[in-house]
Amino acid sequence: MKFEFYFIGKTTENYLSQGIENYCRKLEFYMNSSIKILPVSSDKNMIKALKEESAKILKTISAHDYVIVLDEKGKSFSSVELADEIQKVMNHSFSKIIFVVGSAYGIDGDLKKRANLVLSFSKFTLTHQMIRLLLLEQVYRAMTILKGESYHHG
Amino acid sequence: MKFEFYFIGKTTENYLSQGIENYCRKLEFYMNSSIKILPVSSDKNMIKALKEESAKILKTISAHDYVIVLDEKGKSFSSVELADEIQKVMNHSFSKIIFVVGSAYGIDGDLKKRANLVLSFSKFTLTHQMIRLLLLEQVYRAMTILKGESYHHG
Repeated sequence: MKFEFYFIGKTTENYLSQGIENYCRKLEFYMNSSIKILPVSSDKNMIKALKEESAKILKTISAHDYVIVLDEKGKSFSSVELADEIQKVMNHSFSKIIFVVGSAYGIDGDLKKRANLVLSFSKFTLTHQMIRLLLLEQVYRAMTILKGESYHHG
Repeated sequence: MKFEFYFIGKTTENYLSQGIENYCRKLEFYMNSSIKILPVSSDKNMIKALKEESAKILKTISAHDYVIVLDEKGKSFSSVELADEIQKVMNHSFSKIIFVVGSAYGIDGDLKKRANLVLSFSKFTLTHQMIRLLLLEQVYRAMTILKGESYHHG
């Protein structure tokens, strides 16, 4: 099993990159994890741009991948519920969990359809770059919960 | 009117401090805003520690202050709903809005009782230091929404 984080576009804020790298390093203590930066479409038409970005991602995903797409309108989980979800996936024969965070304009419907889970962090609209940090921290937290460690105060 | 952000304990992560300062600077373009770091209680008893921290905060709050306390079990708002809430408060004769983020162990019930609004960012447990960054960004976002600016994609 491994975790892959697909982010559309570079993390431009240096302070966020530091936090993201920090949690990615910590997470690797529990699970082989990597971040993949995907190109932002140059199409001026927003809908076409999202389609293009999503098509590129769909090509790299196999049937053995468990895909979690982040979207404001997705399901909201507690930290323990996310940990349980990850545990369930680990109990099955998936080769990896791919977490996808879209660009500033969100994520295409086709990718949401392929997703095994569409996950919402907040009813608030957050920046797509900040969500990367929250996601890494939350997956790290999930792994500490599964290992029974004290990072998470229940 | 002004905004005051009460944080219990220093922000120890340097990358988060950078982000928090960044949004505080941006926010000051719209509203007189300041961050107040309150001491973490040294009491080993968690309940007593929260009571002590809360008592200190309650002393500094006046009847003219609109208090928003952040808590996992609070109400969840969209970004537009938070902007509307801030607008409503600005239409009344409050002297300031005080946003309170507790320590790692949360916030005392007395402070929640005094709060005009108990606000939840996420069903996920987030670090109390990361919430500071999210809060600053969200209040900044709210002000850009109220000014009809393009920062927020609705």
